[in-house]
Amino acid sequence: MSNSAAAPRPSHPKEAVRVGIVGASGYGGVQLVRLLSEHPGVQMTYLAGQDSAGKRYGDLYPQLAHAVDLVIQPVDVDQIAASSEVVFLSLPNGLAADLAPPLLAKGCKVLDLSADYRFRNLATYQSWYRMGKTDPHWPSPDYRQANEGSVYGLPELYREAIAQAQLVGCPGCYPTASLLAVAPLLRQGLVELDSLIFDAKSGVSGAGRAAKVGSLFAEVDGSFAAYGVAQHRHTPEIEQACSELAHTPITVQFTPHLVPMVRGIHVTLYATLRDPGLVGEDLLTIYNAFYRQSAWVRVLPRGIYPQTKWVSGTNNCMIGVEVDSRTNRVIVLSVIDNLMKGQAGQAVQCLNIMMGWPETLGLPRLAFYP
Amino acid sequence: MSNSAAAPRPSHPKEAVRVGIVGASGYGGVQLVRLLSEHPGVQMTYLAGQDSAGKRYGDLYPQLAHAVDLVIQPVDVDQIAASSEVVFLSLPNGLAADLAPPLLAKGCKVLDLSADYRFRNLATYQSWYRMGKTDPHWPSPDYRQANEGSVYGLPELYREAIAQAQLVGCPGCYPTASLLAVAPLLRQGLVELDSLIFDAKSGVSGAGRAAKVGSLFAEVDGSFAAYGVAQHRHTPEIEQACSELAHTPITVQFTPHLVPMVRGIHVTLYATLRDPGLVGEDLLTIYNAFYRQSAWVRVLPRGIYPQTKWVSGTNNCMIGVEVDSRTNRVIVLSVIDNLMKGQAGQAVQCLNIMMGWPETLGLPRLAFYP
Amino acid sequence: MSNSAAAPRPSHPKEAVRVGIVGASGYGGVQLVRLLSEHPGVQMTYLAGQDSAGKRYGDLYPQLAHAVDLVIQPVDVDQIAASSEVVFLSLPNGLAADLAPPLLAKGCKVLDLSADYRFRNLATYQSWYRMGKTDPHWPSPDYRQANEGSVYGLPELYREAIAQAQLVGCPGCYPTASLLAVAPLLRQGLVELDSLIFDAKSGVSGAGRAAKVGSLFAEVDGSFAAYGVAQHRHTPEIEQACSELAHTPITVQFTPHLVPMVRGIHVTLYATLRDPGLVGEDLLTIYNAFYRQSAWVRVLPRGIYPQTKWVSGTNNCMIGVEVDSRTNRVIVLSVIDNLMKGQAGQAVQCLNIMMGWPETLGLPRLAFYP
Amino acid sequence: MSNSAAAPRPSHPKEAVRVGIVGASGYGGVQLVRLLSEHPGVQMTYLAGQDSAGKRYGDLYPQLAHAVDLVIQPVDVDQIAASSEVVFLSLPNGLAADLAPPLLAKGCKVLDLSADYRFRNLATYQSWYRMGKTDPHWPSPDYRQANEGSVYGLPELYREAIAQAQLVGCPGCYPTASLLAVAPLLRQGLVELDSLIFDAKSGVSGAGRAAKVGSLFAEVDGSFAAYGVAQHRHTPEIEQACSELAHTPITVQFTPHLVPMVRGIHVTLYATLRDPGLVGEDLLTIYNAFYRQSAWVRVLPRGIYPQTKWVSGTNNCMIGVEVDSRTNRVIVLSVIDNLMKGQAGQAVQCLNIMMGWPETLGLPRLAFYP
Repeated sequence: MSNSAAAPRPSHPKEAVRVGIVGASGYGGVQLVRLLSEHPGVQMTYLAGQDSAGKRYGDLYPQLAHAVDLVIQPVDVDQIAASSEVVFLSLPNGLAADLAPPLLAKGCKVLDLSADYRFRNLATYQSWYRMGKTDPHWPSPDYRQANEGSVYGLPELYREAIAQAQLVGCPGCYPTASLLAVAPLLRQGLVELDSLIFDAKSGVSGAGRAAKVGSLFAEVDGSFAAYGVAQHRHTPEIEQACSELAHTPITVQFTPHLVPMVRGIHVTLYATLRDPGLVGEDLLTIYNAFYRQSAWVRVLPRGIYPQTKWVSGTNNCMIGVEVDSRTNRVIVLSVIDNLMKGQAGQAVQCLNIMMGWPETLGLPRLAFYP
Repeated sequence: MSNSAAAPRPSHPKEAVRVGIVGASGYGGVQLVRLLSEHPGVQMTYLAGQDSAGKRYGDLYPQLAHAVDLVIQPVDVDQIAASSEVVFLSLPNGLAADLAPPLLAKGCKVLDLSADYRFRNLATYQSWYRMGKTDPHWPSPDYRQANEGSVYGLPELYREAIAQAQLVGCPGCYPTASLLAVAPLLRQGLVELDSLIFDAKSGVSGAGRAAKVGSLFAEVDGSFAAYGVAQHRHTPEIEQACSELAHTPITVQFTPHLVPMVRGIHVTLYATLRDPGLVGEDLLTIYNAFYRQSAWVRVLPRGIYPQTKWVSGTNNCMIGVEVDSRTNRVIVLSVIDNLMKGQAGQAVQCLNIMMGWPETLGLPRLAFYP
Repeated sequence: MSNSAAAPRPSHPKEAVRVGIVGASGYGGVQLVRLLSEHPGVQMTYLAGQDSAGKRYGDLYPQLAHAVDLVIQPVDVDQIAASSEVVFLSLPNGLAADLAPPLLAKGCKVLDLSADYRFRNLATYQSWYRMGKTDPHWPSPDYRQANEGSVYGLPELYREAIAQAQLVGCPGCYPTASLLAVAPLLRQGLVELDSLIFDAKSGVSGAGRAAKVGSLFAEVDGSFAAYGVAQHRHTPEIEQACSELAHTPITVQFTPHLVPMVRGIHVTLYATLRDPGLVGEDLLTIYNAFYRQSAWVRVLPRGIYPQTKWVSGTNNCMIGVEVDSRTNRVIVLSVIDNLMKGQAGQAVQCLNIMMGWPETLGLPRLAFYP
Repeated sequence: MSNSAAAPRPSHPKEAVRVGIVGASGYGGVQLVRLLSEHPGVQMTYLAGQDSAGKRYGDLYPQLAHAVDLVIQPVDVDQIAASSEVVFLSLPNGLAADLAPPLLAKGCKVLDLSADYRFRNLATYQSWYRMGKTDPHWPSPDYRQANEGSVYGLPELYREAIAQAQLVGCPGCYPTASLLAVAPLLRQGLVELDSLIFDAKSGVSGAGRAAKVGSLFAEVDGSFAAYGVAQHRHTPEIEQACSELAHTPITVQFTPHLVPMVRGIHVTLYATLRDPGLVGEDLLTIYNAFYRQSAWVRVLPRGIYPQTKWVSGTNNCMIGVEVDSRTNRVIVLSVIDNLMKGQAGQAVQCLNIMMGWPETLGLPRLAFYP
């Protein structure tokens, strides 16, 4: 785990790398398609989907018909491996466990966007993601072995390991915004470890493109609510990385809320300072130093608080830091686009690192505004 | 301070009470106009406004022209007192300080929606609302005296005092949602007093009807952000009532955020439990008991979290309670309509109490949905 | 067909009429529940639903649990008739055809919110609503007979017939806004009959509470589009009433669009004037005279154009009229709340008329704003 | 006027062209900044603004501080001309009239985004834009002369003239969407010339970044309304180009509406067909042929209607065509992003043509979705 700059200088792509996307029809998949179809280093060769196999991609998304001229294929490991050097898996939790091992065996690099390869300890995965399931053959030896070789795809914390990885388990959207907010505090040992509260707010696209009553416009518009209080699955993922940063097990409070907007995550982090003498400028200095090498993290000047719109459509994370001397707490505000830095963009950032390309290659940096 | 039920039974209004509204053209004012024009106990006799005096109210709001047939008058104390038994002041902070005393002297009951009469200690008001102002004559003797006789208009905590009051300082929107969330915890001594964190989210109407770039649709839509971190003016108001509930001075963390929606406030309260053995059901029992006499507070069943839309257009506060046994914290979720229970509705609720009417008279209870 | 005022003066309800609602769980149903639970003339005795039978209504809609204490019953004609004097049917098209006749036979008054009883000529219904269906037994004799006795429930055009009706076929949302816009023009013979173009825009709640990808927040927000161009089912309904107004068959252009908002319909009507000498003031005079007896239609002053928000939550229709002397066209702008005057509110207005009550009884008249 | 393909093949830029933007702080300006800062053929050398001169651009827009490192300069013609080969003017109407002539005289190419250089006949400009103004010296000889040499910047109709122009008057947003909808019909003589009705709908960003009550989130959200009925200033602009297409003067009906969304324009065009035998497929064939050379216009397949979201953030115009055989009308649906193809994107498209570059250079083609 390191964010040092000892890695070799990135080089620009010589010829296009062939990439495939499995699960191209959801919101995550369509972001990958958008990004990869304009990425100067790759050629999209294979789009796969279970339900939509056989359809033209432009029939699913008429607005992309002029740009993406591919037919969706079935999820066939041999065909995928034959056509792709790199494979993105954008599937519901549980499916990549079986799909990644044979692709790795055939020499593909794999970037998985589900939760399957995010946990060092599969027992943690099991207790949060497979409650009530009692399959004696789980996990399969192949899955277990692949997972041991996987790297958690948060470049700002695991850049060097990603550069060497064959399999990357890309982080969840909430953990990305939460960990980038908290990392400097834990690395520097500045806060009480039992005081971490992540109050998180997300746009609706995080719920995906499934037809659910709770995601209808008439239900969501004009409303704000919490969900999954004290039991959201992203909690253990945040705790795992926090514990590695602090070199000791950490339990955190994490509360997600739904915001009536399409994109964006905002995390408000509360932590109690160990040293009551620290002021806002001190913290900004520490944050700026921590992220100096990170092209996709922007620490804002004192008194400027990030808006989710400021990162909309980009791979940026923007961070504001404030100290409340009355309560001796630091409050960190962190925003990302949940579908970009929180999902597809971060996966492409990992691809760039795995390929030795500049980390910013092919990724939007100017927010969609207004 | 009491929420007991020792008060005499409310009686229905015999004949209409004449009421005036000063500051009828903003969002708060227009809510008062809507509520009072349909309230069975009152007759609106006087609408006053500085900038809009002389205009018909229906010219300001064509959608109300068929229902409100009044011309906006200048802010003239004699005329107001001559035409009104009760006066609502819905003005920017600082103006009610001068306006309320002469109205009281002429026998009017006054409900002020600004911050002027919310603080027992005017030094607190001064340090948060009049920073940098050095008027040696402030506060005037009349203002000081009126403030000493004023009551904080949160009926669930100060019902009996409101019933006797001539002057009510109606609470801010954030404090209303925050205090209803925290009151049972403090009254019962259940939580660590330095652990209170109120992460609050508000719709945009809270910023009023002023033409500001930051409130434009193209700026707000699709965006979420914090503001006033560690320095919002509603902090001392929350602390004052918390301290009275706990019988000891309390400092709280309060962070407001702007949500891309018109109405609604959602407060997520975090507090550390003193007794780690308490579970969610215990807390629900306590909350239900605390609010048994309160017609406008609804404690939701276990696992149901309130949505701001569930109270939209009503005077309801809905509350969900959850305990996280991993972190030993209680998380309370509280929602109100910022313009109703957070402003105009609560003022009318106070009026009902002052008049001896049923607390629910003339106030909407069914949410505007979808 | 008449909007004269020859009807006897309305009388206030003596005792509560027992009403049932079949199909109480959709957006139309929940509006009926909201309106009828606060209506001074009725008592809700029966809520019926196929899928949700056996559940408490407050489990479907937690925000209404404090106000509606009923269990949803199966759709049983005998039980409905035993408990209800008046029955509202809020079901998908095709179901009321079978349900209304036995309810009428048992003496119930029936208000149907579907398309089943809107058409004088069932062949028109068949060709637009039952394309491809070839049931030789359709329509049943009972359905045909009930339909012959039904009245089209647009009070501003058919007030007297509604007052005598046992069965009312309530209009669609688009036809309501369209017909109120065009009626004075056709009644007075002011426009070319082949020139009528209704460009209509609707909020998303018109699509109902079904879980469809096209109604997801992430799909609808920030987007505007037409649908059903040249083939929407509300076209023949508009044509039927237009033809009756003009005493000759009329074909109209009707184009619906989806607006990223929850509620509201806006119709922009274009028609070519027969007399090029007419000016805007002439038209306003005609519109005001036409709607003088209609408490729920508001003709706006010259130069004021209605916003859908101005009628939100109310039973109002607001109308603006403009003449373009350059093109010799009249442009009429008409707005309603699609769930109120466009659906549940209008059904309650019809109920009031059927019962001899004031037409405004129990219906909101002040818009939800902001 | 021609859309033939006789022009020389475009060549890619050799070295960066220096461009300046006058009026960089509004919504139009910020789009230009975003596009030009990533455009491979240009270097932004000068940002000018009257009110914001002296500020860093990143202070106005913190979300762009990492990408745009320029200080806003005063509007000084000498400095602009010294630093820029091409100048974009993004100012309120009336200012470019004075600014363009001296810039042209100093050898700059100028693209004006206001209405000042859109009209061949300045009397038309005067009667719609300068009502009540009686300046005897207007227009100045310089302005008149510059206007005579200007070209209307709608590439799909005036591509060859733009390629030769020193001064381009870029079209308004509504005229762009309207003219692309109607052009094939008029060029081919397919419709009755007095039958054109453009029912147009726009997102709120079209009103700019000025702080106006009518543009507040709380006013706009959830509401839809018409404005400027029969008198909007874009009417004569549409009529000018229509008349040139038809080689005869044409009067049109144009009605704009405000949609509660940030971006996007949707035009619904109604026209009566001269030949009642034409069917939808015929029209699609004609539209496809007309736009075969136009990279930024996409004619959609039969039965697919464009959504504004499908072009969001791109320079695309998407068009759907339908024929209603019952009414003998053609209905054309046309969508653009009002800030891109409707403003900044189209200006860059014109720049590409003026420079002999590919028309698509540096312009986004994949919609921001979801």
